[in-house]
Amino acid sequence: MFAPTPPPPYYAVIFSSTRTEGDDGYEAMAERMLSLAARQPGYLGAESVRNAAGEGITVSYWRDEASIAAWKQQAEHLQAQHLGRTRWYAGYQLRIARVERAHGGPP
Amino acid sequence: MFAPTPPPPYYAVIFSSTRTEGDDGYEAMAERMLSLAARQPGYLGAESVRNAAGEGITVSYWRDEASIAAWKQQAEHLQAQHLGRTRWYAGYQLRIARVERAHGGPP
Repeated sequence: MFAPTPPPPYYAVIFSSTRTEGDDGYEAMAERMLSLAARQPGYLGAESVRNAAGEGITVSYWRDEASIAAWKQQAEHLQAQHLGRTRWYAGYQLRIARVERAHGGPP
Repeated sequence: MFAPTPPPPYYAVIFSSTRTEGDDGYEAMAERMLSLAARQPGYLGAESVRNAAGEGITVSYWRDEASIAAWKQQAEHLQAQHLGRTRWYAGYQLRIARVERAHGGPP
């Protein structure tokens, strides 16, 4: 599940959300968006988890803020954002952050 | 599930992990750590999701880097970090990031 990010600095988009009831096309679109994002310039990777209660956190990682701005304006992504606001998400929070330090690994 | 964060800037600790098999004291310690963190100076909130496959993302939010450094050194938290590395986590990544922009809401 771990994104193969380079040494910092780079950027993270932290997207927390709660889903409405039912699928309603959501899963297919979510997969399509991850696949599209992966082809965007500046994309470094993403980590995404959703639990059975419909609570989800997706963190995507980007080279710089310009890459994030370009992805936000991507045509198909704009449509998905609209459907997210009107249909799929009961609530969401999006935070853009500059990653300054990182570590981890197998224990 | 949403952390009641103030307007940016503030800091995020993005902790992604995969669990080993079985509980082995993990859930109780995870709850204890969230409860302890909430009493630390500079703590702003946290969002945490784990799926049935054992993949989890916890993002905790802090006023500044000094608050994060103090929490990292908290005695009981140091014990939990050791158990995490040796017992509970098959793998983990920890990233410290400065949140620069945020938005969201009910759609």
